[in-house]
Order: sequence, then structure tokens, then C-alpha cells
Amino acid sequence: MIRFDSDYLEGAHPEIIRKLTETNFEQTPGYGEDPHCENARRLIRQACARPDADVHFMVGGTQTNITVIASVLKPYQGVICATTGHINVHETGALEHSGHKALALNGNEGKITAEQIDKTIRDHYADASFEHMVQPGMVYISFPTELGTLYSLEELTAISQTCRKHSIPLFIDGARLGYGLTSKSSDVTLQDIARLADVFYIGGTKVGCLFGEAIVICNDALKKDFRYNIKQNGGMLAKGRLLGIQFETLFTDGLYLKIAANAIDMAARVKEMFASRGYQFLADSPTNQQFPILPDDMVARLHGQFGFEDWQKVDATHTAVRFCTSWWTPEENIKALEAALD
Amino acid sequence: MIRFDSDYLEGAHPEIIRKLTETNFEQTPGYGEDPHCENARRLIRQACARPDADVHFMVGGTQTNITVIASVLKPYQGVICATTGHINVHETGALEHSGHKALALNGNEGKITAEQIDKTIRDHYADASFEHMVQPGMVYISFPTELGTLYSLEELTAISQTCRKHSIPLFIDGARLGYGLTSKSSDVTLQDIARLADVFYIGGTKVGCLFGEAIVICNDALKKDFRYNIKQNGGMLAKGRLLGIQFETLFTDGLYLKIAANAIDMAARVKEMFASRGYQFLADSPTNQQFPILPDDMVARLHGQFGFEDWQKVDATHTAVRFCTSWWTPEENIKALEAALD
Amino acid sequence: MIRFDSDYLEGAHPEIIRKLTETNFEQTPGYGEDPHCENARRLIRQACARPDADVHFMVGGTQTNITVIASVLKPYQGVICATTGHINVHETGALEHSGHKALALNGNEGKITAEQIDKTIRDHYADASFEHMVQPGMVYISFPTELGTLYSLEELTAISQTCRKHSIPLFIDGARLGYGLTSKSSDVTLQDIARLADVFYIGGTKVGCLFGEAIVICNDALKKDFRYNIKQNGGMLAKGRLLGIQFETLFTDGLYLKIAANAIDMAARVKEMFASRGYQFLADSPTNQQFPILPDDMVARLHGQFGFEDWQKVDATHTAVRFCTSWWTPEENIKALEAALD
Amino acid sequence: MIRFDSDYLEGAHPEIIRKLTETNFEQTPGYGEDPHCENARRLIRQACARPDADVHFMVGGTQTNITVIASVLKPYQGVICATTGHINVHETGALEHSGHKALALNGNEGKITAEQIDKTIRDHYADASFEHMVQPGMVYISFPTELGTLYSLEELTAISQTCRKHSIPLFIDGARLGYGLTSKSSDVTLQDIARLADVFYIGGTKVGCLFGEAIVICNDALKKDFRYNIKQNGGMLAKGRLLGIQFETLFTDGLYLKIAANAIDMAARVKEMFASRGYQFLADSPTNQQFPILPDDMVARLHGQFGFEDWQKVDATHTAVRFCTSWWTPEENIKALEAALD
Repeated sequence: MIRFDSDYLEGAHPEIIRKLTETNFEQTPGYGEDPHCENARRLIRQACARPDADVHFMVGGTQTNITVIASVLKPYQGVICATTGHINVHETGALEHSGHKALALNGNEGKITAEQIDKTIRDHYADASFEHMVQPGMVYISFPTELGTLYSLEELTAISQTCRKHSIPLFIDGARLGYGLTSKSSDVTLQDIARLADVFYIGGTKVGCLFGEAIVICNDALKKDFRYNIKQNGGMLAKGRLLGIQFETLFTDGLYLKIAANAIDMAARVKEMFASRGYQFLADSPTNQQFPILPDDMVARLHGQFGFEDWQKVDATHTAVRFCTSWWTPEENIKALEAALD
Repeated sequence: MIRFDSDYLEGAHPEIIRKLTETNFEQTPGYGEDPHCENARRLIRQACARPDADVHFMVGGTQTNITVIASVLKPYQGVICATTGHINVHETGALEHSGHKALALNGNEGKITAEQIDKTIRDHYADASFEHMVQPGMVYISFPTELGTLYSLEELTAISQTCRKHSIPLFIDGARLGYGLTSKSSDVTLQDIARLADVFYIGGTKVGCLFGEAIVICNDALKKDFRYNIKQNGGMLAKGRLLGIQFETLFTDGLYLKIAANAIDMAARVKEMFASRGYQFLADSPTNQQFPILPDDMVARLHGQFGFEDWQKVDATHTAVRFCTSWWTPEENIKALEAALD
Repeated sequence: MIRFDSDYLEGAHPEIIRKLTETNFEQTPGYGEDPHCENARRLIRQACARPDADVHFMVGGTQTNITVIASVLKPYQGVICATTGHINVHETGALEHSGHKALALNGNEGKITAEQIDKTIRDHYADASFEHMVQPGMVYISFPTELGTLYSLEELTAISQTCRKHSIPLFIDGARLGYGLTSKSSDVTLQDIARLADVFYIGGTKVGCLFGEAIVICNDALKKDFRYNIKQNGGMLAKGRLLGIQFETLFTDGLYLKIAANAIDMAARVKEMFASRGYQFLADSPTNQQFPILPDDMVARLHGQFGFEDWQKVDATHTAVRFCTSWWTPEENIKALEAALD
Repeated sequence: MIRFDSDYLEGAHPEIIRKLTETNFEQTPGYGEDPHCENARRLIRQACARPDADVHFMVGGTQTNITVIASVLKPYQGVICATTGHINVHETGALEHSGHKALALNGNEGKITAEQIDKTIRDHYADASFEHMVQPGMVYISFPTELGTLYSLEELTAISQTCRKHSIPLFIDGARLGYGLTSKSSDVTLQDIARLADVFYIGGTKVGCLFGEAIVICNDALKKDFRYNIKQNGGMLAKGRLLGIQFETLFTDGLYLKIAANAIDMAARVKEMFASRGYQFLADSPTNQQFPILPDDMVARLHGQFGFEDWQKVDATHTAVRFCTSWWTPEENIKALEAALD
């Protein structure tokens, strides 16, 4: 079975496996205070052109989202996000478990706008009973979004300016950041992200690591005592160097973006094979997730041979499905899929 | 620098590294629903002689403790534990962050007794204003304890019976379970643990894995919907197979207990080298953590050459320190330490 | 200034003030364990025709909602409600602060349907990644709703049956229950509520009390240890008899429904005065809240003379406003309002 | 039955009942934004000699404690308190439910010292693994304590200075503040409290009100958005004026301290009647709670005629019991008790 279910189906880039093997019997302090983590932090600060940033490593995305959000918000504050945002849908209420409400806005193909954010904040304070409602305390967006779409530099800049105008931090979920930055349609760089966000993370789990997300805190006001939050949220890995080793590998010689590019190339071929056959898409994604809308009998037939996700029913006889590619996806998998379409 | 700071300073057993490398390009479903996890679950059930148990894998100990506890307790319930219990001291209040109080009892070398537990529960209900106090809802003990000591089979049985008498689940933190089971002083087997606890975990992080803890739920009443809790607590590893692969390796041909035995042998030599020179110990530990009480100038001198933890001051000129051995600790490290003592 | 801002602008029914004065120097045990509370419980069980129900008293609505919900839900569960539900909008995220997500459905004039609830629950379990999403654990509806509308007996019965089919408790917020039960349009009785809900509360704050809500737990499974929850949520009034005295007064000789009827009569006149002048309404409310849509200049003019809430802008020049009547509203206030309309 | 169980057995001072009756049909805005609350705030600021303070009203003590604490602490912070502190013992874990740990210190007759606090904070940061432990974020003391004892002005000043040295707010629980300030043994004034605490509350429930606590926030850094916290914690009383009316009554012409004095006088007679008969006390209390240690047969006999609490067993045949007096306790009750002693 060839699988396109998601971008975390395989292990890690071979260079990471090599490094983990090579360092296996080193003795290092735990909890992220080892030389590998220190080196990875240095390399990430450099890549972000943010020598002042704090960098922390965690194991997975939900953990990272919740730790960042809970470290920033006051008890009565919530986080503005798209209704399709991962924190609003697919984290089993980790956000609410940490005490906070998702102030979810209807997005367009997974994206929200600076105008929506501005209106939400202004409307809150304009209401006479504002103290009876959750105060907006943070903005959360994903780059790329959960539907594979991307914010342009202009859109991101407008969102960032809106956040700064209202003194509300902007948090960018970069679980698939590499796939956003290497998309041919993107005019956004890692340095732009690091300039416009108050805090964001660089996804490793889906882009070459066994696991791992690198949190980059750019806003000084959010840096204090962050490691307490990591520990309290169960996210301080004992053998923290495993995260350091993976990220120092990815951020040496630009490996992170190099390997991300493969997913983009393969996804473009998936998009093209469906588009050229006249299928519509749930969203116009320029990244590694593609959501063609297919007849249900075709969906059933393809499931016999391929792994992919049924995303949502669009009408009585059609379903939007998700095909993911990854840093690893070999060309023969793409060819096999195309061969099965006709 | 030779390090005895803790038992998570090195990587993983080479067989685990080999398996991770070998399986690196397999494509498997995520979140613990892959064949490696299934196999590991089967092997663990077998080793526990509990074909009915549910087995789940998480990455680290704090996460595991909090997920288990929060899945069991009602909002107004707390967990009975020793004051030295890991959940009470070293998890940055993850327990309280999840909404629950530690009902901490003064232990003896890290251990609490069935009598103490029984009295705590009876006292609660005997108080006229019991509804104004946190209700005991679970008992948490560590095997071995945070001071390296062990419950005897008789002590464990009494605790288990007390819990069952009061219909309160017993949770055993087995972060170092392997080192408890292989201690020469222990009359407790894995099957005993699985028979006496309602839920427990088998520590991998400190006993041969890169990371990973295997939760074993024996009490049917605690099984339902557990995976929701894992996800909500940020503990559902995307590439869950990494946990499955590690535990299937450890539970094939008894590797887990075999490698744990090394730590016990090396720790016995650490104990002997200090005892034979007349030093006292903070606790009489038969496992891989040793707590000799040393003069402060000796502590300072040894720190120049070895990693170990200053545990607590015992008087103006002496400190109890902790030396940990692990599944990996080579004999030459022990010899180097002994050479430095004289 | 004559006020229609809300239904909690005045004090209490004079009979309640008389009873509080009369009993002022009685010495009674605290925390709801006094004879007045016991008597009030008896009277409420009787009025509900539920001799088996548990009855508890709390001070206010938000506190009551959160205590009930948090006592029922498991950590990974959320509560199905209307987007306009009080818990979703006007409680400053008390729901999320207690760890739970609002699974909010778009309502029709504040009401949701059995079909919507059924679909939400079925969709949850139909999704392959259901464990990554918040599990529906309770249904919350308000009677009357926040827009003054009412569920018919048929609608309530269908919702109750859907909940029971899925083994999910139904919680009815009765902050304004008296105004729902006495509405001329209602075919629902207190006994119906007590038969169809698993737990509900009878609002006192807005219907004759100084403060106070009476929780009625009908489902045995929800009764255990409820008082711990009250205390933990800061809702166990020291001089609990104040609640008992108020509710025994209201449930003696049917005072509760008798005084509620005044609000209904006065609200009908408010409705009629706007309707007869051709104004539209935000919702067709048969209870004590009326939401006429008025030209903004008229809104501004009326604010000079009357208190009422601007509810929401409906277009560039019109605003839906809220006029509330209460058990106390005297006829001359209605006449003054009518006089001001022309 | 004459009752000395607690200080919340009766209703309110007659002047309060009179004012509530008199204002019953006023229409006022809700939620504490009415003229009575405004006036009460002004009077309290004046009495405290803190024109800059923010004053808020809540219904009860547990609610007040939790709202104040949760508004101040970061998620990973805990609150230093005495093991006997109300928040640590008698609030059903409301503190932990809000996410925070009690860092409980062994007190002396309910009191902790500046030295203990200082050591706790210094020890925290001195520990190499401090990020794995709960960070001290606030100090909570009660005046009077739960054992009726009082801090001297010198002790309070030292505690306040220690808190300021470490930039940690000092919160004083004044549930029985009136009884502390009017004790003959006290050299502390309300102005001292308002000068030394960062936030404190003036207890009304136990000192003349039907219910109500007045929070006084002196530290500017703790003022922002406090009303959101009140609402989120279910403590924003709809008819907020009930609190305003009660406190404006108590703070007009010094009524609060005047009526508190009666409890002190009557308690002194209780103390004297037991002391003169040779009984020991659990603590040497100069306030309205007295804890004589009595033979168990005497305890049983007295329970036939009087209400009082069995506080704790002190040996096989003796129990420390609690007798409370209040602002209301009439002299004949004291005489009846004395008559029963011989």
C-alpha cells in the first residue's frame, strides 16, 4: 500500500538517523541543556536573522501550541483563529483544557484577514458588556494553513500590524513551515516570519525529523520563564539532545528547505494530475496537501490501492479527499497514483 | 567528564537504534495505530500476564503521570502520594495545572504505607466538613521510589488491598520499573505489579529507550476513551511507531530486564565503595540511585571530575548527593569513580 | 429613569424581604444544611413531581452553569449548545476556564433542534480521527432562550429522546424558567422540564429573589458528591439559609409562577406597542424579553428617558434593542414607554 | 440550642436589613456598577487611606480567594501559605482547580514568618532544577488566622518587606478582618493592612453582612481587567448593589469595627471561663475563635446543649473544640455556657 494519508508516515531524513546513531553513547545533560541543543538554537537564530530570539524544542504540535498559548494568555483571554485552525478542531480541546476559548472566525480556504481580526477586537471593546465576554488575547494562524493555503507577505504584514496596533501577540503555527516557505507561490521567507510573528514554531515532525518542533520567541515580553511552562505541560524531553541533534542537522547547510522542496514538487504533480482530468479542489493549495473532490466510487476504488484521507463530503456523490506528500515521497509513488487514475 | 547525574544521559540500547534505522522508510499509520505498536502491546500484555490490559505509549514521565491522573480523578478529587513523590515535587505543578491536589503524606525513605493511606481516607470521611476538603481519589506510588527504595511484595499487597477496600485506584509510577524488578532485594515481579495496580507504567526513557513510557491499564473502569486523554494532554506522538518499535525491542527475549540488571550491578558497586569507606546514606537504596552523604570539600573535589547531583544539605558541612547508574554504565566508569575516592 | 435593561434591576418580592427580616436572628447551620433549605428542597421536589430529585441552591447563573457542567463532563468532553447560548457568549469563558469546549450550533432564534444534536453526535463518531476532537458529553439549552423564545413540548421531548439515545445528559438553563412556564405560548410545565431534563435549574435571581438558583438533579448518575463541586466552584454560600428562605417563599402557594405572570403580561404590551406601529423584531419572543428593531435616531431618543440594551446592529440605520420586563414591572412604566413612542 | 459553631450562623446587622428593605424597589444597573457600590468603594478607600485602591465586591470567601489568586499567578506559579491556611484545607481544592499549587509551610499557631517565606523563595532559585518545581508567585496569610491568632505589626511589616524584596505580591485573607482589628492584642490598623498588603479583602459574611467580601487592590500591577476575573469565576452578582448596600452601611460611622468589638468581648469571656477552670488551649487566640482542649466526656455533655465544632483530637481522651462568637452573640449565651461548665 502506497500512502498519502499524511506527512508523518515515514521516519526521519537519513542524515538525522546517522547523527542519532553516531551520538548515541555521548553523555549529555538532559532537558535541552546540552551542546547539541545549544548549537541548534544558534543555527536557528541565524537562519531567522534574529540573534535576540529564544529558541526552545518540544516533541509535537499540540503540545507546542498549548504551551505557547497558555504561557501568553491571562485566564480570561482567548485566542483568535480560523474555525479550521488546528487548535480549534484537531487537538481534542487541549486549548480549552488549558482554560482558554477559541475565538474562531470563518476563514477563506483556511485563512483569516487583518480586517476580521481588527473587527473582532474592536467589537469586543465596543460591547457594553465586554467584561462578560472572553477578551481577545492572541492571534493564531497557521502557515501553511490546514487546507494547504498560504498567506502572502502582504497579508501577513497586515495581520502583524493589526496585532501590534492592539498589543496582541501573533503566533504562527509552522507545523508545515518548510512546505510553506518552499512553495513556488510563496513570497514569504523564514526571516519574514521571524520579523512579523511574536512567536512561531518550525515544524520538524512533518519535515524530516522523527519528531520535534522548534519554538522561536521573538517578542521579549514572552520569553520569561518559558521553560517552566514546557515542563508543566509535560513537554520537557529528558533526552532533550534528541531534539537538538535533529534540528542542528536540519539547519546545517539549509537541509530543512532543501528536503521540503521535494514535497512541493511531488504535490504539484498530484495537483496537475487531478486538475488536468477536470477535477475540482476544496482549496487551491500550493503546498504539500492537495484536496481534490472526487466521485465516491472513485474514492472507494483508490482506497483499495492507496492511503489517503476522506476530508469532507461535498455533495451526495462526491467527497473532498486529502493527498499529502512529504520530504521523502519518491517519484514512483506519484507515478503509481497517476497510473491508477485512468 | 564521566557522568552519574541521572539515568537519561545516554541514547538508547543499540538494538533499538538498529530497529529504528531498519524501519525508517516504512510507511505506517500515525498515532499508535501501526503494527509495531500493536506488537509491542501484545508483548507487554504477555509479559504482564494480563491479556485483558490496555496498553498505551507516551513519550515522557510527567506527561504520562498527568494523563493517567487526569483521566481518573473527578474535579474535586486529589491523589494520595508521598511528599517526595515525583508528581508532588518535580513536575512544575503539572498535577495542579490539571486541577488536582497532591494529598502528600510523609514517607519513610520515599515510601508510604497501607496504614497511612487507610487513615487518610477514613479521616477524610470522618470529618464533619469533608465536603469542604479534597476527596482522596487515587493513590500514587513510585516503584522504585524517588529515593531508590522498594516496596516489598507484602507492602504492595497491603496498599493494593487498602485501595480496593476503599474503591480507589492504585497507580504505580514505573519510570524506573526495570531497576526495581531486577534489584536483588526485590521480591516483586512485573506480574505482581500488573495484578496489584489498577494502572501503572513501564519506564523506557530511563531503561534503554530514547524515550517512551508504556501505560498498562488493568482496571476495566479506567480504560474507556483513554486515547482522547492522551491527545488532549499533547501526548499522542504523530509517528507513534517510534514508541512501538522501542518497546517491541525491549520486550523481545526479555531485553528490558536483562539490560536493567547492569544498572543494578554497577550501583551495588557504587554503594559498596562508599559504605566500605564509612559513609552514611540518605536512604538505603537497593536500586540504581545511590545517595551517599559526603563532606562538602569532597563533593567539590569530585565535581571536578564527575557529574552527579547535589540532592540535599544534611548539615553544615555535609551534603547528600545522588549517583545514578544506567543500563549502559560501563565498568570503567565505576573504577574511575572508586579511584577518585581515595 | 425607567429601566427595562434587564430583569435583575430591582430587589426581591416583598414577601421574601419579610421572611429574611423575620428569620434574621435565627441561628442555623451553614452551607445549606438548615431547615429552610430542607423545606425549600421538599417544596421544589413536590412542584416538580420528582420526589427522587436532588435539589441544591447556588447564588448566580454563571456559577450554576459551570458547576453543573464541570460536575458532569470528562476532561475531553464538550457541551453542545446554541451559538447564542449564555455559556458560549456571556460568561467570560467560565466554561473554557473549567476546561471544556462549547460545541456551538447555529440556532434558529436561539433554539437548536434534536436533529442538529443527533447529527453532531453521529458526525463525531463517524470521523476517523474522532479521538482528536472534543467528544460531545452534554447538551445545554436555555428555556426560555437568550432571545426569549421557547421550545415546544414536542421539541423538548425530541431533544430529550435524542440525548437519551446517545446517553448524553440534557441540561436546561432555567435562569428565566418562570417566564417560560407562564408564557401564554408555552405548552411546557415544570413537571415536563423535570421529566425531560437530566438536570436543570430554576432561576430565582431574575424571578423574584434577591439572588439564587435552584439546581434540580433528576438523573441518579449525576447526583453523587455534587456538594464537593459546589464548594470547589466557590458557590457554597456560608449563610445558605438565605437561599432556602427565598425558595421556600417562592414555592409556597405557587408564588413563583404567580409573580412571573406579571412580566409576561407587561412584555406582551411592549410587543404589541411596537408591532402595532409596524416595527419588526429580531426574534418572535413570547416571554419577558422583547427585541424590536428600531431606527437609530429613535434608539438615541428613547435612551434619554429609558434604560434598555442595544442588542445588535441589523443594518446601517437600525438596531435591535432589548426591553425586559420583570415580576415587578408596574403598568405605569409600560404606559410611559408607550407614551414616548409617538 | 445555643450555637457557637461559627460566626455565620445568624443573618445580618439590623441596619443592613433595614437598608435592603428600604432600597428594595430602586432600579439600578447590575454587576456592581450602581451608586451604592460606588459609594461603598469610596467609603472603603477612605477607611483604608488608599484613595488609589481598586475595590471590588464578591459574595463569599472561597470565591474571593480563588479569583484573587488566579488573577495574579502565572500557570507555573504557586502560593506560599500556612499548612492550616483556608485555601490549603477548606476550599475543596478550589486553588488547585484553578491550576495552582499551595506551597504550604508549617506554621506556628497558624502563622508563618518572613524568614520562612524568604527561605522558601531563596531555596527555590538555589535548586539546580528549579524549572522543574512550582515557582513561588504569591504569599497568602490570614488575619486573623484560622486558629484565631494575629500577626503583630512588626511581623506583618517583615512579611511585606520580604515579599517586596522578591517582587511577590502579599495577599491577606481578611474573612474575619474586623475581629483581628478590634482585638485588644492587636497593634495593626486597617490602614496598616492597606499599606502592607498588595491585595486583601475585608470580610463581611462573618462580620455583620448577610454575605459579601470587599477586595481591596492596592498594587497597581494587579488592577487591570480584574472584573473579567470576577465574572469568569462566577462571582459577579447580578444585583451587585446588594453588596454595595451592605458595605456602605458597615463603613458608615465605623459600624464595621463597632460591631466586631462585641465578638471580641464575648470571646474574651469564653477564654476566661475555660482558662480559669484550668483548661489548656490549642492556640492562644485573642480573637473571636477559642479552641479549649476538653475531656471527651465533657465535650459529649456540652454538645447536648450547645453547638460548637470538634476541631481535632489531641490525645486519647481529649479534643480541641472551637467556640466562635460573632458581632451578634448576646451576653446571655455566654452566661448559659458558663453555667453549663460546672
